[in-house]
Amino acid sequence: MQRSIDPHTRSARDIADELAVELGKSAAERDAAGGTPKRERDLLRASGLLSLVIPKELGGWGASWLDTYDVVRRIARVDGSLGHVFGFQHLLLATLQLFGSEAQWRPWFEATAREQLFWGNALNPLDRRTLVRWSETQAGRGRIDGDKSFCSGALDSDMLIVSAIDPATDKLLVAALPTSRSGIALRHDWDNMGQRQTDSGSARFEAVALARSEVLATPGPLSTPFAALRPCIAQLSLSNVYLGIAYGALDAARVYTSEQSRPWIASGVEHPSDDPFVLRHYGELWVELEAARLLTDEAARALDRAYARGPELTAEERAQAAVAIAVAKAKTTRVSLETTSRVFEVMGARATTARARVDRFWRNVRTHTLHDPVDYKLRDIGAYVLAGRAPTPSFYS
Amino acid sequence: MQRSIDPHTRSARDIADELAVELGKSAAERDAAGGTPKRERDLLRASGLLSLVIPKELGGWGASWLDTYDVVRRIARVDGSLGHVFGFQHLLLATLQLFGSEAQWRPWFEATAREQLFWGNALNPLDRRTLVRWSETQAGRGRIDGDKSFCSGALDSDMLIVSAIDPATDKLLVAALPTSRSGIALRHDWDNMGQRQTDSGSARFEAVALARSEVLATPGPLSTPFAALRPCIAQLSLSNVYLGIAYGALDAARVYTSEQSRPWIASGVEHPSDDPFVLRHYGELWVELEAARLLTDEAARALDRAYARGPELTAEERAQAAVAIAVAKAKTTRVSLETTSRVFEVMGARATTARARVDRFWRNVRTHTLHDPVDYKLRDIGAYVLAGRAPTPSFYS
Amino acid sequence: MQRSIDPHTRSARDIADELAVELGKSAAERDAAGGTPKRERDLLRASGLLSLVIPKELGGWGASWLDTYDVVRRIARVDGSLGHVFGFQHLLLATLQLFGSEAQWRPWFEATAREQLFWGNALNPLDRRTLVRWSETQAGRGRIDGDKSFCSGALDSDMLIVSAIDPATDKLLVAALPTSRSGIALRHDWDNMGQRQTDSGSARFEAVALARSEVLATPGPLSTPFAALRPCIAQLSLSNVYLGIAYGALDAARVYTSEQSRPWIASGVEHPSDDPFVLRHYGELWVELEAARLLTDEAARALDRAYARGPELTAEERAQAAVAIAVAKAKTTRVSLETTSRVFEVMGARATTARARVDRFWRNVRTHTLHDPVDYKLRDIGAYVLAGRAPTPSFYS
Amino acid sequence: MQRSIDPHTRSARDIADELAVELGKSAAERDAAGGTPKRERDLLRASGLLSLVIPKELGGWGASWLDTYDVVRRIARVDGSLGHVFGFQHLLLATLQLFGSEAQWRPWFEATAREQLFWGNALNPLDRRTLVRWSETQAGRGRIDGDKSFCSGALDSDMLIVSAIDPATDKLLVAALPTSRSGIALRHDWDNMGQRQTDSGSARFEAVALARSEVLATPGPLSTPFAALRPCIAQLSLSNVYLGIAYGALDAARVYTSEQSRPWIASGVEHPSDDPFVLRHYGELWVELEAARLLTDEAARALDRAYARGPELTAEERAQAAVAIAVAKAKTTRVSLETTSRVFEVMGARATTARARVDRFWRNVRTHTLHDPVDYKLRDIGAYVLAGRAPTPSFYS
Repeated sequence: MQRSIDPHTRSARDIADELAVELGKSAAERDAAGGTPKRERDLLRASGLLSLVIPKELGGWGASWLDTYDVVRRIARVDGSLGHVFGFQHLLLATLQLFGSEAQWRPWFEATAREQLFWGNALNPLDRRTLVRWSETQAGRGRIDGDKSFCSGALDSDMLIVSAIDPATDKLLVAALPTSRSGIALRHDWDNMGQRQTDSGSARFEAVALARSEVLATPGPLSTPFAALRPCIAQLSLSNVYLGIAYGALDAARVYTSEQSRPWIASGVEHPSDDPFVLRHYGELWVELEAARLLTDEAARALDRAYARGPELTAEERAQAAVAIAVAKAKTTRVSLETTSRVFEVMGARATTARARVDRFWRNVRTHTLHDPVDYKLRDIGAYVLAGRAPTPSFYS
Repeated sequence: MQRSIDPHTRSARDIADELAVELGKSAAERDAAGGTPKRERDLLRASGLLSLVIPKELGGWGASWLDTYDVVRRIARVDGSLGHVFGFQHLLLATLQLFGSEAQWRPWFEATAREQLFWGNALNPLDRRTLVRWSETQAGRGRIDGDKSFCSGALDSDMLIVSAIDPATDKLLVAALPTSRSGIALRHDWDNMGQRQTDSGSARFEAVALARSEVLATPGPLSTPFAALRPCIAQLSLSNVYLGIAYGALDAARVYTSEQSRPWIASGVEHPSDDPFVLRHYGELWVELEAARLLTDEAARALDRAYARGPELTAEERAQAAVAIAVAKAKTTRVSLETTSRVFEVMGARATTARARVDRFWRNVRTHTLHDPVDYKLRDIGAYVLAGRAPTPSFYS
Repeated sequence: MQRSIDPHTRSARDIADELAVELGKSAAERDAAGGTPKRERDLLRASGLLSLVIPKELGGWGASWLDTYDVVRRIARVDGSLGHVFGFQHLLLATLQLFGSEAQWRPWFEATAREQLFWGNALNPLDRRTLVRWSETQAGRGRIDGDKSFCSGALDSDMLIVSAIDPATDKLLVAALPTSRSGIALRHDWDNMGQRQTDSGSARFEAVALARSEVLATPGPLSTPFAALRPCIAQLSLSNVYLGIAYGALDAARVYTSEQSRPWIASGVEHPSDDPFVLRHYGELWVELEAARLLTDEAARALDRAYARGPELTAEERAQAAVAIAVAKAKTTRVSLETTSRVFEVMGARATTARARVDRFWRNVRTHTLHDPVDYKLRDIGAYVLAGRAPTPSFYS
Repeated sequence: MQRSIDPHTRSARDIADELAVELGKSAAERDAAGGTPKRERDLLRASGLLSLVIPKELGGWGASWLDTYDVVRRIARVDGSLGHVFGFQHLLLATLQLFGSEAQWRPWFEATAREQLFWGNALNPLDRRTLVRWSETQAGRGRIDGDKSFCSGALDSDMLIVSAIDPATDKLLVAALPTSRSGIALRHDWDNMGQRQTDSGSARFEAVALARSEVLATPGPLSTPFAALRPCIAQLSLSNVYLGIAYGALDAARVYTSEQSRPWIASGVEHPSDDPFVLRHYGELWVELEAARLLTDEAARALDRAYARGPELTAEERAQAAVAIAVAKAKTTRVSLETTSRVFEVMGARATTARARVDRFWRNVRTHTLHDPVDYKLRDIGAYVLAGRAPTPSFYS
């Protein structure tokens, strides 16, 4: 699908905001429905924003990570699921650049910008069932077989980032494949309490052809400090989704308190906006949201600095970015859970009607914040602060 | 329906536990379905437990409030909705005794024990749309007209406690009426994010006949310190429901962590039950649950003491019970919200599958804890602790 | 010193309350002074309460642990330091009974009741510098040499419970010795930010004679589940001291808010007791204090049950008491820190005058709650709740 | 005293850091002593930093508020008291500019830059005992009489900002007077639990001569949105002091854990820096400190923007800065209290020795955060977030 919007005439932010209005209209309804938001994914394609981080000279917007995440947050604010797959679009593009050679990522970047290809995830380092076997007769030819869970955004994608274990070396390979390749079956089996339209279900690979040239092996997964920025980008994408959802919950609360809530009978005030306890709740929620916002943006700036260093990035420089991102992750986790639960206290009992689906904000962050345990983020931060120990690069840290 | 279990041969607790096993089997499924749990309500009728607080000499179990709430909690532990309507059964019975004359409550108690009548709620002091008009021609005859919201457990009930405003005096009248009386229409319109089988929807009264003798007017609503125990009983019933739901969430978590969770890759342990952070979470959750449990039982003892005083109860004695109950309410509110959200952190991402519906615990308490704002409970407690000011009796304090 | 009060004519609680009034008068001043509260220790001796847990038939009060800790709490409420040494008096008496033979503890109990002996602590399992050497020539004769830290209440004591390492076996021996024995030097070197009159300084042992018969070896330290109740008693004594101090802080706050605080200019109220935020703070503090109180009393009942089992106590029964006590410890730790810091928010800036020394409540609990890390208590509770694993008996668990 | 350091050759930050090393050496000792830190105040004078915010063209550094507060924080990190008086130096200079005419502030700015005059505070809007009376015979001549409390930094100051009530109008007048003026008596009566060297004691004015030209009347106190930035500057100065003190506590903890703490016996690790709970504490503390830091700097940028607008500043622009500053105040209040109390948990019991005075960090923030109640800040923030209501300008909001 061709991009229908010219980035030179409108800002990404404006396009995102317009898109958000559209996505927001059906978000509650689609939360109930689950499944693949095909129409909305096509709106994302049509927006041209799928090439946000791709350099201008390759046809993209050349957005910084700070600006890219800002758009992620704007989308997550109205729709957590789309915020996630949109954020991971850019993670998957970065994966090409971080794990692969320029000869690999350059044409993919150009094609993505040109055709607004939507990338899906089939990389799951914790699921070791998908195996690659190299042909003994055909040099550079192999096949992928096996199942894989948590393949967010794979359904309706154009391209996939796929991981598989090579039993010969016990190593994880990562490759870029067209979603349409024969043998790839994506199941419609994601049915979770939250983030219901991320299609984070399972995939089955059966004799899927793989060429050596499709493997991102130079430098390969996490093999250099720069390559090890991949989990940083993933973690910060999650953080922005959490934060966006939290803002979405506060938006809903503000409208509700202003327009629908009644003053509590014992309050002695005419309107809930004069209730000292209601105001204090809003104050507390806002202080923490502002804190989360600033930490998340600060982390994005650290990431931009690190990314700009390219292959020269040192382990210590990577650690600084990783710790800033862990801080953002820990804070957005806590704040989004707190906000999405507490907003009900400033709305009142009638806000629990199923029709409004205000609980989706909490269900979304509660589901999504379990991606990896925040305790280990706090431990890593502590080790860095106390003893200067850098987090060990992994797909989660 | 006749009671099928002889209270003299088995303890209420044993019956409740057996019932809970049965209710628990379908709780997740019924949470998805919503609507009236007709089969389960009939199981409650068949259990004989609907007459728990009714004195033995009138055919009941003669249970204390402490023991009654213990059963409420056991049911809420597997099913928050049934816990609520079961708790309110006893609140509605107490309403007869607190607001009405012995000539009124005695036959109703006997009938309830004999026939295991299920009482439903149509008393909502915040909804002033239901009006009573007394006939000018027929002495002692009137009619009720108008709508009412939040009528928990009214559907499938045998008897109703109904409130209506008398426009002549602007006072709230409370009466006991058979649910089947002509002109009462109970709508199947409760569709909320939590407590989905409490049938807390709306009712419509159209020319419903009312006899003066059905009105609970001696002493009448909240008219004496003893009558003002009614909200205390309601609040403590809610507290026990919250607490029961929280225990239910912890039960689910313990089974899951033990049987299904995987150790986190960075933990270096073989099983999540060796992960120091997982154990610390369980420790923290347990400390607060124990605190909530003791406060709730302490409040039940205070209520039992106050209730035993009967019409002699003084305002200060009532205040002591009310404050103990407010303390339990504040604590169970916070602990149940915290527990039902945090349990996911000791289970992990896979526990968010929609099939398990583990989010129902949070949805249930988040919905139910909005009954009335906890801030005003804290304010009332503070006024008593600091200045010895008793909470002003109302339907919520 | 002879006991001047006949326990048969007045309750321990009344005596404690009267004593508390006296101790409270000088508590702030003595917090400034530090050092040994000789006069106040003599008041404790004169009160007769030093034999609270000693059975009536041996001349004591025969108080339960529940009642004993209640008195500890009453004293700690006005004076954290005296609360601590008074609590440890009973821990040290129990040590005789738990680690030693009846032939050992019976005469010491009788003497303590008769002469109101004050016991001091020189048992520190973490400090391995004090060694015992047994004579090769004189059977059953030995000597103790070396330094020891954290000897609370040893100064001005009549008897000491002393620990020492036997290098031959690397085991910890525990013995009861008169404080006046030649070679024991107690240093006046306790100068800490809190609990300033506990005399928790250091001791030096130089060729201190030790008879084999003074060693508590049957059954010996922590050697049976019953002997392993010793740390339980210590931990629960600490919990009661924390709780007492927290109540003391709230007492101070209530008086101050009522009598000295001014309404905040932006509050629009006449008196701080009408300020909704002030009331909410009091409400929150009270809820948590009540929770801590009930958990602490519940733990005392668990301890009383376990203690009554005597040497028959099983490991699982001991675990139940230990976990209940860990719960109380965790909760009182958190609540006392929170209360003693937050009370300032309901008093205002002028309450920080050095003269009032209101900060002593926080300094006392902050110091005392570091006895052993609460994280490990939470871990132990979690292991029991999740996996049924009993805490490993040690001097701290 | 002449400035001995040329701002053109060294950065203010470098000078501050060097000064901080010197101040830090005696901070614990001076906390014990209390009183006026004469030597250290003279070091501040000699540093040249007393003219930090004064424009370069008037002889100052021309520092932004962001940079000025950065220096405040660096000083507070080692010495909360000096951080406060140094921060207020700049508040008092700004007071001249915000309340007075250019003809007033310009010469005072020049003199302050030239002579490094130290300004002290005798402005206390809550204390209405100090009165001004204008002569009926001598035009423009008056006298000030009466007492005043909380005059931070007045002792050893060169100039004072003084407030007094004019009984004729009931209005608060603010004037700049030399500290040496006849009739001004500053009492050495500040003896508080924290911020012990701020000299925040009382003053007595007895027939102190006042010229009409010394009154800051154009535009006068809080009379325009720009003039109403004064409390914003004060609040943000406090926030930076809280934050600096919190960092100071963490500095102390890091050194202590690394060099002196022992691993807990049940931890199974060799060094506390391998204890997962210790690391998690550091992680949690750091996340919140980072949040507080970013919010505080964000608020400083908002202030710089507002200040740059000068008399053109609108009420809404002022509100934006005031709310950002309230957010910083609320967050630094909470974080500093939490940090200074929790650091003990990563240090252990031995860190409570009186010699180290580690409790001073908590005593300082506990004292200082009572300047005005944070609840009203949260209320104001909430009103702005929910309803767009700007905080009512006052000396505290």
